[in-house]
Amino acid sequence: MKRVPASFLPPITLDSSGAIPMYRQVYEWFRRAIMAGQLRPGQRVPSTRGLAAELKMSRIPVSSAYDQLHEEGYFETFVGAGTCVARSIPCDALDQPVKKQSEASRQVSQNKTPRRISVRAALLRGAPQPWLSNLGAFRVSLPALEHFPVGVWSKLVNRHSRNQTRQSMAYGDAMGYWPLRETVAEYLGAVRAVRCEPSQILVTTGAQQGIQLAGQVLLDANDRVWIEEPGYPGARKALMTAGAQLIPIPVDEEGLNVAEGIRRARAADAVYITPSHQYPLGMTMNATRRMLLLNWAARTGAWIIEDDYDSEYRYGGRPIPSLQGLDTSARVIYVGTFSKVMFPALRLGYVVIPKDLVDAFSTARDANDQFSSTLYQAVMTDFIREGHFARHIRRMRMLYQQRRTALVEAIHKQMPGKLEVIGAEAGMHLVALLPEGVNDLAISKKAAELGIAAMPLTSCYESAPIRGGLILGYGGTDVRQIQQGIRKLGMCI
Amino acid sequence: MKRVPASFLPPITLDSSGAIPMYRQVYEWFRRAIMAGQLRPGQRVPSTRGLAAELKMSRIPVSSAYDQLHEEGYFETFVGAGTCVARSIPCDALDQPVKKQSEASRQVSQNKTPRRISVRAALLRGAPQPWLSNLGAFRVSLPALEHFPVGVWSKLVNRHSRNQTRQSMAYGDAMGYWPLRETVAEYLGAVRAVRCEPSQILVTTGAQQGIQLAGQVLLDANDRVWIEEPGYPGARKALMTAGAQLIPIPVDEEGLNVAEGIRRARAADAVYITPSHQYPLGMTMNATRRMLLLNWAARTGAWIIEDDYDSEYRYGGRPIPSLQGLDTSARVIYVGTFSKVMFPALRLGYVVIPKDLVDAFSTARDANDQFSSTLYQAVMTDFIREGHFARHIRRMRMLYQQRRTALVEAIHKQMPGKLEVIGAEAGMHLVALLPEGVNDLAISKKAAELGIAAMPLTSCYESAPIRGGLILGYGGTDVRQIQQGIRKLGMCI
Repeated sequence: MKRVPASFLPPITLDSSGAIPMYRQVYEWFRRAIMAGQLRPGQRVPSTRGLAAELKMSRIPVSSAYDQLHEEGYFETFVGAGTCVARSIPCDALDQPVKKQSEASRQVSQNKTPRRISVRAALLRGAPQPWLSNLGAFRVSLPALEHFPVGVWSKLVNRHSRNQTRQSMAYGDAMGYWPLRETVAEYLGAVRAVRCEPSQILVTTGAQQGIQLAGQVLLDANDRVWIEEPGYPGARKALMTAGAQLIPIPVDEEGLNVAEGIRRARAADAVYITPSHQYPLGMTMNATRRMLLLNWAARTGAWIIEDDYDSEYRYGGRPIPSLQGLDTSARVIYVGTFSKVMFPALRLGYVVIPKDLVDAFSTARDANDQFSSTLYQAVMTDFIREGHFARHIRRMRMLYQQRRTALVEAIHKQMPGKLEVIGAEAGMHLVALLPEGVNDLAISKKAAELGIAAMPLTSCYESAPIRGGLILGYGGTDVRQIQQGIRKLGMCI
Repeated sequence: MKRVPASFLPPITLDSSGAIPMYRQVYEWFRRAIMAGQLRPGQRVPSTRGLAAELKMSRIPVSSAYDQLHEEGYFETFVGAGTCVARSIPCDALDQPVKKQSEASRQVSQNKTPRRISVRAALLRGAPQPWLSNLGAFRVSLPALEHFPVGVWSKLVNRHSRNQTRQSMAYGDAMGYWPLRETVAEYLGAVRAVRCEPSQILVTTGAQQGIQLAGQVLLDANDRVWIEEPGYPGARKALMTAGAQLIPIPVDEEGLNVAEGIRRARAADAVYITPSHQYPLGMTMNATRRMLLLNWAARTGAWIIEDDYDSEYRYGGRPIPSLQGLDTSARVIYVGTFSKVMFPALRLGYVVIPKDLVDAFSTARDANDQFSSTLYQAVMTDFIREGHFARHIRRMRMLYQQRRTALVEAIHKQMPGKLEVIGAEAGMHLVALLPEGVNDLAISKKAAELGIAAMPLTSCYESAPIRGGLILGYGGTDVRQIQQGIRKLGMCI
C-alpha cells in the first residue's frame, strides 16, 4: 500500500465558539474522515505536535483526541512510521462513500440524453481506432526508438537539469527559447530552403499544435479550408477545433489538384497541404502545381498551411525545397516537428510565421498554454549544435531505406499480386493498396487483435475511397518484425 | 561563427539529361548557394565521397567541381574541419538575398490595412504589459525558485532520462501518464476534498491549458460565461480563444456575487471562478455563496470552471475544501497547476473532469497538441510519491508567510496610509489599493522601468475600477528585495 505523505490531510474545519470541546472536534473529524474513506488504512497522520501547530491550538486537546482514536482502534502506531490509520478498519464501513459517489455518477450516466458540449467538441469524437492502441508492427509515425542515442541525449538532459537557473525555471517566451529559434531558422534555411529569421520561429509542442494554432489565428467558425483527399486525419481534427469547414480536394500523382480546388471553392480561406510527401499516399507535388497554388493564394488572399513532415527522409536523392521558400507573398505558414526525427514524447515542433502575423500567433500561444517546457528546448538546441541531430538523421535515413526495401520485398514475396505499393521513396511509411472490394477497416481491426498497427487508408478519407489500402509504417518496425508482420497481415486478408 | 553540420545542405537539383556536364552543375549549384547566402562563410560542406553517394553519382565530377571551387576561392580547407565555404567571400555579394527578402516583407508591412486574421485572434491582442517583461520584485505567480530542491529534482530527471524505454519515448496517452493521474487523484482527494478517480484526471501543460480546453469542449462561439470582476486575465484570454462572450460579475468580500450574476445573465452557459482565493483580491467565497452557485448550475445546466490556484498556501490554518467536492451534479471542471508550487517552466497541470465528459476532453486534447511530454510526468510522480512535494510545500508555506509579513510591514512602515492591503492571508500575492484618483497603470509602467514587476489592478478589470491598486507577488521576492522594492515603489507613487 502506498503511503500518502503526512501533510496530505483533508481540510480540517473547527468551530472555535467553544460550544464543542476542541478535543472532541478533532476526534470527530478524524473518525468521520476515516469512515468516509478520505483517510485510508495505513495512511500516516501528523504528529500531535505538528497538527497542533498547523491548527494553531494547544497540543493537549490534540493528544486527547489521538488517545481516544487509538483506544477505539482507529489509529495504530508502527515503528518508524509514527501514528497511522489502523489497517483493520472494517472494509464495509469504508465502502459507503464510494457507493454514494458511484450512485451519483450512475445518475449522470443514466441520464439518457448526453449533456450538452460544444458543437466543435461533439464533431471531433469519432469511431474508435484500435490500430492506434498498440505499438506493434507498422505503427505509423513511430521512429526507430531503439536506435536513438539515449546516452548522448540523457547526458545533455542531465547537464541542463543540474544547472537550472532562475531564468530557465521561470516563465518562458511564448515564441520559444531564443537559441533554439536561431538554430531552427538556420537548419530550415539550409536544409529546406525556408526563408526566415529566428524571430519568425514559434516553438510548439509538435506539428499538431502548429496546425491547431494556425487554424485558431487564421480561421473563424465556418471559414472554408481545402484539405487533401485523402489527407492527414490529425490535421482535420486540428482545423475542426477552430470550427472550420473542411473542403476535400482530390490528390492525383502530381499532388493536390489545384484546378479542381479552384473549381470547387475558389474563395476558400486556407489550404492545408503536405507538398513534399503527400500524407498518406506519398507523392511529391510538382513545380507547376506549386506555382498554381501560390498564385491562387496570392490572388485570393488565402492562407497556405504547409506541413513538411518527413521531409528529412528521401531515399531518391532529390530533396524538394519547401513551398515557403518559393512564396513571395508571405502567405505560407510552415509547420514542422521533431517528434518523428527524435522521439514523440519529446513534444517539440515549430512553425515559421509570416512577419506580420508573429504577434497574433504569439498572443494565441500564450492564451492556449503559455509556452513550451524550457529544459527540452535547451537540450534540443545543444543536440543540434553539437552535430548529434545531423548524425542521427543520416543514420536513420540509411536504416529506414533498408527497412522500406525489406517491407516492399516482403510484400512482393509473401503476397504477390495482392497488395500494390504506391508513393515516392521517402518518409517512414508507405501505402499498400488492397484488391478492389476488400474492406480495409475490417482488416485493420483484425490485425490490431494480432498486435499489428496497420492503419486503414479509409481513415484518411472524408468520402469513401475507390480502393482500400493499408498505411504501413516501417520507421519503428525492424526487418524481423516486418517479415512476421506481413505474414500475419496475409492471414487477415 | 557556429558551424552548420555538413549534412544541412539546401536541396540540390541536377539535370540528368546530359545537356550540361555534371561537374559544371555541381559547381554552379555551390556557387549560387554561396552567393545567395544559403551556404554561409565557414560552413562545412560534405566530403566529395559523401556528396557523390548522396547524389548517387560518380565521385569524379564532384571532385572536379570542388577543385574549381577551391581555385576560385569559394572553398577553403581547414585542418580537422574538412572542406568549408571560404570565410573571405565578399559580404556585399552575400547581402543581396537578404535585401530581396526584406523588400518583400517591407511590401507586406507597407500594406496599410493589416491582413485578415480570425476575430478571436484579433480580439486577443491587447496593450503591451511592461510589468511582465522582467522577473524583478513582486512578479506575480513566481515562486521562490532559489529554494527549489534542484539537486533532488535533477537526480530524478537523470534517473528517468537514462532509463528511457520504447514506451516512454513513444506516443503517450492524451489524458496523461497513468501513475501521475493516480497520484494527483490521491493528492487532490486528501488535500482539497476533491472527489475523483484517476480516470477523471487529465494532465495538462498548466492551468492555462486546462481553462482553454474547458472553453473549447463546453462553449460555442458567443456562448456566455460569467467571469469575476476583477478577475484573472489569463482565464479571460483562454475563454476568448473559444469565442465565448464574457459577462463580468462583481465580487465582494464574500466572493462572486451569485445573485447579481443571476440577475445579469441567468441563462449563461458557464462560470469561471477562483473560490478558494479570489484572483486578484484574495477573499474566500463563503459557504452560502457556494451553495447558491452550485444550485444555479444544477438548475440551469451551466458549467463551473473552478480554478483552485494557490490553494496550497493558506497561512490562517483553515483550508477551505474545493467546490468540486461539494458538487453533486457533476457540473464542476476543477483546474489546478504545478507551475507555482514547483516551477513555471515545468509545464504541468491537471483538470478533474466529470466522468461523462472525459472522452470529449481527451479527444480535444489530442486534437490540440496530443499529449504532455512523458519525462517530466514520470519525474513529477516520483517527486510526489517520495514525499519531496509535501516537504517542499511545507517549507514554502513557512517562507511565503514570512515574506508576506515582511511585505505588509514594509508597506506600513515606508508608505503609512498610502497603500491599503486587502485579501486573506493566503497564496503568493496581495493587493495594495492606491489612494483614489491615482492611476495604477502609470505607476506599474514607471516601476517596470526601475525593474519592478508590479501588476496594475486595472489589468484585471473589464470596466474601469473604482480604485486602482497594485498586485504584489511575494513568492519569488526575498525580504531584502521586498524592502528595496517598496522603497522604489514609493518613489513612483
